[in-house]
Amino acid sequence: MYKNLRLALAVAAALIAGPAGADEGMWTFDNFPAVRMRAALGWAPDQAWLDRAMAGTARLPGCSASNVSAEGLVLTNHHCVIACVTALSTREANYIESGFMARARDEELRCANTSVQVLAGIADVTDAIAAATADAAPEAFARVRDAEIARLERACAQGPTRCEVVTLYEGGRYALYRYRRYDDVRLVFAPEHAMAAFGGDPDNFAFPRYCIDFAFLRLYENGRPARTPNHLSMRFTPLQEGEIVLTAGNPGRTSRLRTTAELAFEREVNLPWQIDSLAEARGRLLAYAMRGADQERFASSALQGVENSLKGLSGRRQALADAAGFARVAAREADLRTRVGRNRAAQREVGDAWGEIANAQTAYRDMFFRYQYLEARAGERSLLFAWARDIVRGAAERERPDAERLPRYTEARLGVVEQSLRAQRPVSAEFEALNLAFWLSKLREHMTADDPAVRRILGGESPEALANRLARSQLSDQSFRVQLWEGAAAAVSASDDPLVAFVRAWDGEARAAREQYVAQVERPIARAHERIARARFRAFGEAAYPDATFSPRLSYGRVEGWTESDGRAVPAFTQAGGLYQRAASDPAFALTRPWIEARARLDATTIFNVSTSNDIIGGNSGSPLLDREGRVVGAAFDGNIHSLGGEYFYDGALNRSVSVASTAIALALRDVYGMTNLLAELEGRR
Amino acid sequence: MYKNLRLALAVAAALIAGPAGADEGMWTFDNFPAVRMRAALGWAPDQAWLDRAMAGTARLPGCSASNVSAEGLVLTNHHCVIACVTALSTREANYIESGFMARARDEELRCANTSVQVLAGIADVTDAIAAATADAAPEAFARVRDAEIARLERACAQGPTRCEVVTLYEGGRYALYRYRRYDDVRLVFAPEHAMAAFGGDPDNFAFPRYCIDFAFLRLYENGRPARTPNHLSMRFTPLQEGEIVLTAGNPGRTSRLRTTAELAFEREVNLPWQIDSLAEARGRLLAYAMRGADQERFASSALQGVENSLKGLSGRRQALADAAGFARVAAREADLRTRVGRNRAAQREVGDAWGEIANAQTAYRDMFFRYQYLEARAGERSLLFAWARDIVRGAAERERPDAERLPRYTEARLGVVEQSLRAQRPVSAEFEALNLAFWLSKLREHMTADDPAVRRILGGESPEALANRLARSQLSDQSFRVQLWEGAAAAVSASDDPLVAFVRAWDGEARAAREQYVAQVERPIARAHERIARARFRAFGEAAYPDATFSPRLSYGRVEGWTESDGRAVPAFTQAGGLYQRAASDPAFALTRPWIEARARLDATTIFNVSTSNDIIGGNSGSPLLDREGRVVGAAFDGNIHSLGGEYFYDGALNRSVSVASTAIALALRDVYGMTNLLAELEGRR
Repeated sequence: MYKNLRLALAVAAALIAGPAGADEGMWTFDNFPAVRMRAALGWAPDQAWLDRAMAGTARLPGCSASNVSAEGLVLTNHHCVIACVTALSTREANYIESGFMARARDEELRCANTSVQVLAGIADVTDAIAAATADAAPEAFARVRDAEIARLERACAQGPTRCEVVTLYEGGRYALYRYRRYDDVRLVFAPEHAMAAFGGDPDNFAFPRYCIDFAFLRLYENGRPARTPNHLSMRFTPLQEGEIVLTAGNPGRTSRLRTTAELAFEREVNLPWQIDSLAEARGRLLAYAMRGADQERFASSALQGVENSLKGLSGRRQALADAAGFARVAAREADLRTRVGRNRAAQREVGDAWGEIANAQTAYRDMFFRYQYLEARAGERSLLFAWARDIVRGAAERERPDAERLPRYTEARLGVVEQSLRAQRPVSAEFEALNLAFWLSKLREHMTADDPAVRRILGGESPEALANRLARSQLSDQSFRVQLWEGAAAAVSASDDPLVAFVRAWDGEARAAREQYVAQVERPIARAHERIARARFRAFGEAAYPDATFSPRLSYGRVEGWTESDGRAVPAFTQAGGLYQRAASDPAFALTRPWIEARARLDATTIFNVSTSNDIIGGNSGSPLLDREGRVVGAAFDGNIHSLGGEYFYDGALNRSVSVASTAIALALRDVYGMTNLLAELEGRR
Repeated sequence: MYKNLRLALAVAAALIAGPAGADEGMWTFDNFPAVRMRAALGWAPDQAWLDRAMAGTARLPGCSASNVSAEGLVLTNHHCVIACVTALSTREANYIESGFMARARDEELRCANTSVQVLAGIADVTDAIAAATADAAPEAFARVRDAEIARLERACAQGPTRCEVVTLYEGGRYALYRYRRYDDVRLVFAPEHAMAAFGGDPDNFAFPRYCIDFAFLRLYENGRPARTPNHLSMRFTPLQEGEIVLTAGNPGRTSRLRTTAELAFEREVNLPWQIDSLAEARGRLLAYAMRGADQERFASSALQGVENSLKGLSGRRQALADAAGFARVAAREADLRTRVGRNRAAQREVGDAWGEIANAQTAYRDMFFRYQYLEARAGERSLLFAWARDIVRGAAERERPDAERLPRYTEARLGVVEQSLRAQRPVSAEFEALNLAFWLSKLREHMTADDPAVRRILGGESPEALANRLARSQLSDQSFRVQLWEGAAAAVSASDDPLVAFVRAWDGEARAAREQYVAQVERPIARAHERIARARFRAFGEAAYPDATFSPRLSYGRVEGWTESDGRAVPAFTQAGGLYQRAASDPAFALTRPWIEARARLDATTIFNVSTSNDIIGGNSGSPLLDREGRVVGAAFDGNIHSLGGEYFYDGALNRSVSVASTAIALALRDVYGMTNLLAELEGRR
């Protein structure tokens, strides 16, 4: 499944995207390419359609959603509300297992720390920012611009209205997005996790598919269901093959303007390394989880994350290994360079941006493992390590002026760090040791046993022995953590906790690796990309769509399957009957009792999941699938395996998004769960 | 370390190799490129040198060796005799741990089932085979040729002399290799495994290195040490940087004439898949081995194999990911195609061989996982599965005429199958289930849960549940296996053993996958390669070296280190003192007591391991490193990480072989183990 954006945000710099092919593009609501779409598909939405879609589209952390009733009902994916379902579960009522079904309003339960934002309007503020920054000296530009952005956002905010300036085309355009924010959000319906994620890891990013990965929330105001007259309507008649559909949602990040040098690095260094590491981690976690129920409990969330990443990154590697795909990126780059070459001003502005990026990649290659193992992924998957580093670094950073701190420890973000340290979380020393040993063994494998830093870190111990020793840290005790945090630098330097002492001992080297990375890789690449982006905006303007920025976008396409390279045609639909054919005793394919009992009642030909050619990506999870009348005909929850290459480019022949059809939602609510009131509300009958 | 050839033989078709760069090439003794070597290095051996080297070079299963005393002493690697050391160990005397040291002749212990072959002569028999096959019809050619080969080998064999016709240049040349075969081979000296393989997996294929990966055997005749007057001598004075050295040994297989289509397939499909699978297997095995001593015992050999393959294949992938390396292969291919294009007869003969190979690769891509998971790697690492398949298939195949059987079940090879079934081997149901579950989960992952064969094989069970059920097979009982084998088809079809029934149920599908692979991939590629090889031999003749065929070869080079891409220079030598600096409490780097105690006695500046530019590969393990006087100055046991690309091409800037220096052998025998008699014999003093 698409991982939540929060998980995905680690990925990449936001770049702008190029001139688009048919069905390609993640377009803003205020710059929708109606002419192009009409040329490609024979129809395009008008302004009224776009306005309605915008008003009915919502955002929740890392996901997308739609408002589908006048009383605040919100449709999204089950995997977007899983944290809420988990938090509401108790020993007596495990809603992950049994599902959650509020049959009356007073059974709807509030999701803590969850807010939903409904898009209310977009205004172009490019001129305002240009005016504010017109007289700024180059070195002050970023500060002045950010101050103006903050001023615009403050001026716009009012009551429940929240505003956000979105930087598009790397600063070619600035747009002010106005949201109506709801902080009282309640869970109305969530099916059993086993049915929402039917097929488990084997079916993840696969199609044909049989998931009912949907859930309903309700927005509340003043303790009562919110009145939401601008909601979208759902359509429950079957989708048609070839039908035009659009998705509205918040694609997280894409990397469609990375240069060929960057993609070659991805293909040859970063992805193979990440995939190999994840594959071994998966093996270790799987074998560990098989040892018993306790072990499985501690490992399961890490294992799901690892398996999801493994599939995601394998799909990306496959896309980059495809010579045609790579050639497309190279052609895009060559075209832009030709255009730049024809224009002396553009040429002066861009300089040797592509060469600078290639040089930075070469520099990165030589420091790659050092940066990853000492800094970026140090102690990966170990809770104790993360706490120890926050305590050690936080103590040092808090002594510095805010502007000089590492980003994680600035005043604005310290709250997140403290929250993590103060949280009560169960810790398994055994599981911690497993993760620490894995990291240490990989550190030695990739940096080599001869590296002086490796020798100092391991101190002659085996990764396993050292990990076992470190996992006995007292940091598993929340009060011990808080005490160290509050004791600051003095407490940290006096501590003889093995993990605190361990992290303290080589934090200087880790920081040096980070500084080297920022100075020689991150910053030169960002600067070069800004210049390329300006050249691109100069060449194409808004005829190109901006790279995804977790802000609202539209993509258009059709209901259609695809044809695999071996000639196998994959149809656009699955039907309810297929779910029963696919069911098995294997837990990944096991049906829950309500579905077993409903079999005789339901129409086996009902469209269940659907493949469409819309160009979406992680963050779009929960996006409404919209028909020509602007009615919601499904909720996107995944892409096929080829869609993973969408990180780099959109391949219209293969890239497909996968949605749960509105017909499957109706079938589930009516024939399986008996949620007749909810269905009536969706049908506008109450 | 280089794996034994037996493990490596699965790899590839034997092809001939192209015109060589400096230091490149695995040359036959009777076609040594003295002119080329002299041009490159300023010196080359004369015929007397070559004759002496040939007479002193030996072969043992999967490895190489040299005869280094007049009384039959043979120098090879510890890892080449590890099976013998293990077999001779008892509960009281664990020679893997303690090493084996015969201080007198009567303490030398015979290695069961081990023979050593010393090369006695080479004769060109190309004409004889040409004459015999001159009148053969095309469809009878292979049969007539093989009959003539068998006749030549029989006619030459006499007493302890064994003969083997080696096919070079895919039939461009045939050579009769005459060996003196010794069947009574006794273990004289083997150090502790921990010292032979010092550094373990972290140091495998790494350099600087500190392994004493050597051992001594003695050849016996009529119960007495063999008289071997044509032995080589050892030199114990230090190697010099830049000194010319040659290695003589038996490189197993190389794939240096694969086409670019084949290498692209390796790079994009086969290697990534193998590496990912091995990485996950490693994780599962590691986590399993950590559960306890029993688990570690069952998993350790599989784990070592997996880790060795993982490094080996990762090195190969790295070589193919290198654009310059790949370009070299492409240039070689383009050159040959240009030459062919200039000659109408050659063109007619070759036809569209390159295109046929590319088409076969495309066909392979579409059947790849099916062939791997149903057939080639079905049940990988499960003993029980291998037995079950041999029993099921053997029963069916023994009912067919010999010529129509699957290769493994022909009369000539049935003995190996029976031996495996009759062997008493401890079986852990838990470990079997681990391996079966891994295979089944990968089968489902790569063939997809929708594949009808996958559905039939899993039958709705999860991979883990099915594996657990299958692992309870009674095939762990040797007498049960023998009974089924002897009961043949009737017993097999009547058996209700879960694993026998399981294998039986879909053996037809597995066989079909094999047939499809042979018909559409293996055979077309072999036929096309034969034609390319003929064209190549026509173009270059013996100016090119033939691809490795596990027959005796020479390679020349210098004592030299190399420079990494990040500018780091790796020196050619390590010294004894470095061993102590590298030592640690980590078991992979732990010194044994004799070495700890010897520290004060020994000269820390003694050259220990050495990097040389000789072009060698798996099968060369144990090869003597020879100086200009033909004296043995070391034993090759490994290559650096870049040498792994030697499968595809030789990169003179980076590819290095790694040997244990004769000075380290002397130091170990004299200062650590007190093997004074053995050392005296090596020095020709007794």
